[in-house]
Amino acid sequence: MKIDLNSDLGESFGRYQLGNDSQVIQLVTSVNVACGFHAGDPDVMAQTVATAQKAGVGIGAHPGFPDLQGFGRRKMQLSPLEVQHLVTYQVGALQAFTSKHRLHHVKPHGALYNLAASNHQLAVAICRGIQQVDPQLPLYGLAGSELIKAAAEVDLPVAQEVFGDRNYLPDGRLVPRSQSDAVITDPKLIAQRVVQMVKKRTITTTDGSEIKIDPDTVCVHGDNQQALAIVKQLRQTLTQAGIDLQPF
Amino acid sequence: MKIDLNSDLGESFGRYQLGNDSQVIQLVTSVNVACGFHAGDPDVMAQTVATAQKAGVGIGAHPGFPDLQGFGRRKMQLSPLEVQHLVTYQVGALQAFTSKHRLHHVKPHGALYNLAASNHQLAVAICRGIQQVDPQLPLYGLAGSELIKAAAEVDLPVAQEVFGDRNYLPDGRLVPRSQSDAVITDPKLIAQRVVQMVKKRTITTTDGSEIKIDPDTVCVHGDNQQALAIVKQLRQTLTQAGIDLQPF
Amino acid sequence: MKIDLNSDLGESFGRYQLGNDSQVIQLVTSVNVACGFHAGDPDVMAQTVATAQKAGVGIGAHPGFPDLQGFGRRKMQLSPLEVQHLVTYQVGALQAFTSKHRLHHVKPHGALYNLAASNHQLAVAICRGIQQVDPQLPLYGLAGSELIKAAAEVDLPVAQEVFGDRNYLPDGRLVPRSQSDAVITDPKLIAQRVVQMVKKRTITTTDGSEIKIDPDTVCVHGDNQQALAIVKQLRQTLTQAGIDLQPF
Amino acid sequence: MKIDLNSDLGESFGRYQLGNDSQVIQLVTSVNVACGFHAGDPDVMAQTVATAQKAGVGIGAHPGFPDLQGFGRRKMQLSPLEVQHLVTYQVGALQAFTSKHRLHHVKPHGALYNLAASNHQLAVAICRGIQQVDPQLPLYGLAGSELIKAAAEVDLPVAQEVFGDRNYLPDGRLVPRSQSDAVITDPKLIAQRVVQMVKKRTITTTDGSEIKIDPDTVCVHGDNQQALAIVKQLRQTLTQAGIDLQPF
Repeated sequence: MKIDLNSDLGESFGRYQLGNDSQVIQLVTSVNVACGFHAGDPDVMAQTVATAQKAGVGIGAHPGFPDLQGFGRRKMQLSPLEVQHLVTYQVGALQAFTSKHRLHHVKPHGALYNLAASNHQLAVAICRGIQQVDPQLPLYGLAGSELIKAAAEVDLPVAQEVFGDRNYLPDGRLVPRSQSDAVITDPKLIAQRVVQMVKKRTITTTDGSEIKIDPDTVCVHGDNQQALAIVKQLRQTLTQAGIDLQPF
Repeated sequence: MKIDLNSDLGESFGRYQLGNDSQVIQLVTSVNVACGFHAGDPDVMAQTVATAQKAGVGIGAHPGFPDLQGFGRRKMQLSPLEVQHLVTYQVGALQAFTSKHRLHHVKPHGALYNLAASNHQLAVAICRGIQQVDPQLPLYGLAGSELIKAAAEVDLPVAQEVFGDRNYLPDGRLVPRSQSDAVITDPKLIAQRVVQMVKKRTITTTDGSEIKIDPDTVCVHGDNQQALAIVKQLRQTLTQAGIDLQPF
Repeated sequence: MKIDLNSDLGESFGRYQLGNDSQVIQLVTSVNVACGFHAGDPDVMAQTVATAQKAGVGIGAHPGFPDLQGFGRRKMQLSPLEVQHLVTYQVGALQAFTSKHRLHHVKPHGALYNLAASNHQLAVAICRGIQQVDPQLPLYGLAGSELIKAAAEVDLPVAQEVFGDRNYLPDGRLVPRSQSDAVITDPKLIAQRVVQMVKKRTITTTDGSEIKIDPDTVCVHGDNQQALAIVKQLRQTLTQAGIDLQPF
Repeated sequence: MKIDLNSDLGESFGRYQLGNDSQVIQLVTSVNVACGFHAGDPDVMAQTVATAQKAGVGIGAHPGFPDLQGFGRRKMQLSPLEVQHLVTYQVGALQAFTSKHRLHHVKPHGALYNLAASNHQLAVAICRGIQQVDPQLPLYGLAGSELIKAAAEVDLPVAQEVFGDRNYLPDGRLVPRSQSDAVITDPKLIAQRVVQMVKKRTITTTDGSEIKIDPDTVCVHGDNQQALAIVKQLRQTLTQAGIDLQPF
């Protein structure tokens, strides 16, 4: 039994520093590197890829909307073709910095990820944007979402992503962040939920029901000390439960 | 005997249209495609690459300074490492749109081209930025300039570029645009000068002296009707002189 | 009886030219000048303000979303406070170029205009953004929309804008551009509809019914020869009908 | 006897936080607020102006080159007219956020400040850009530089700025940062040098000679704990020396 731990990296920009990249990279098995549209710049990308290659983690592209001020978190209404092209552009740009010109995966960022999770056309556009660069390059998408369906439809490898620190609705969607019970903060509870996801292949939702899930990767955050503590707890609990931590 | 004719393409941006791409592409053997920093956007790049592939011309990346307002023509004082990374980024982004993920060449744009022509450190940085993407990818640089020397030094293929519509100083540099005799506008004179460059391997400079030159490619412009007329005249004269027009 | 004719101006950017500003400005009574976010740059703004001052038309700010590639036409989900601040920023920047530091009006652009027409919170945010610069500065908004209601609510002067070249639904909204009957192209019909709006204070909608309207300004376009012909016809018909053309 | 202490503020951007604005603002008498080109955004500007108004310090605009990635510190070769217009744009945008639409001063940022200090044409362009907004609005410029001369020439109020933590060359220019003795880090020495500047109206330069100076404002930094300690020491020493700290 195994699982991948992924985290966002390379989100600094010019003089602006963000994140604890050097600490986070020691705790995960794959990373999503910002590509210059919502965060990151060519210098940060070169540095981040070098660090990630040295650490031996899977290097993924993390394309987002062209909105640095909004950090790619503000929804933008782009056409599917515009989305396809901005994915190709960003994935191609990041891939160029890797030593073997091969990436491990692509994970859409922020509002792009969220919109495509429930919009089939956008989800297909993201897949096509990836396929243009490399037809074998896996997409990371919200488990059970349109991203997973679209990838299957166009025959792109896909990893189902789950969130240990988020509550789920009975239909499999995440509880929106606008609700008070959206986020789970107790490290032990988070670790326990992920063990259940990986071993029992279920999630307990907000109404107590269990839904089936087939997780390949868990998204973790490392942007503050508490977040780092959660990842450490998660690693420990997963290892003790006999689950291997390795890239997808 | 042969020569390549190259021209800038894909310089539109969003709603802004620029150039006569569909006409120019019929008259040249290779094109330099803007990569989104000084001109172009992911949609324009996708469209331009598709058009160029259909026309069968050599597709080159045309990386520039991150200055859309200045169209990449305003000098920016970047470090060599910053230049190296922005070249890798832009070349990688453009290459991703090509069907075989291979470009024909890279030609720096505007102020980046001009600065590097006389700055060895920047010239080397550009070469290294290209090599990161593809060590076999030729650089187009001003004939006899630091770009040519740097490419030779780091063992990157290089094409020497000449300008039929510009006057040259006795030391091989172009007459600066600030001077009244910088540009030649007579189509027949331009064509005649290029024939001399290709056949006799010399340029007649402003003081009447001839300097040796070894041209691989001629830069032509097609952004207005007069420019198109010049290219047509050039093609006709070169062909009549028994010179093959083909990509470098 | 009188009406204002307004048109968008100053939409060039850097090397990119757009519109027929010098011709349009002779045909309208007020202009909406792009402020550098969706179009325009400081040089274009300085030039456009100078031209407009010389022509004696009312100079309005035309703030939009920060999306040059999308020309401000792609919806962005910004918070009301973000919208308020980007309006203040852009209006302040444009006003600084005018000789008396007074603008004639503010008209939101593209997706910002459309979103706020049916979103009360955004409409109020735009009003507050304007009031921060000048509490007496009129807002141009879609007749009968949330923009008009919000302005009344916060006590900001407002001009009701109508479109002669667009069909209206029975509820007063414009027929969406996605429908085939959205746009009217016959210059005489357009002119006739505007005369009806101004004199009879009604619009005939798609189902033949007439709704009441209270127009202060008509939006006209001048970005191609056909558009210019429409404005010329409109001017002629309105004048013949005894309607004065003057700024709001 | 009196002096102004000024510091850069409002340099955050979107999700990126920079500086200790809330602490710095308690220690200075005037602030230079970034205007969205090299740092800052409309939300940060609104927040910073509100904070500065509450603290009662003089609010200045801090216009810079359009280069967020380079934080306005990379030289860009713009025409004087381009510089004039980007100054007007940024000063106008910031002024719009102030409650009385009056600023206290304008201080160019980074590479723009440095280039204009020795380039008369750029210095005049900056002055004209300010005058367009408000002919009474003082410019802060390097003491004895072209900025001071240009302001005098076009009759713009000007404040001569000195640096307590920088060594000076015998001709009055700052020792370039590329040299090891460019910066002074000892808080007591810094304070002592500023007291000499204010009271004795001289600076001791690198060769031991004293040159005359006429300082109106001292630039201080507060972006880390050591910088804050220097400002505190400076305030204490200046006050003990009987020098009033007040805005220019």
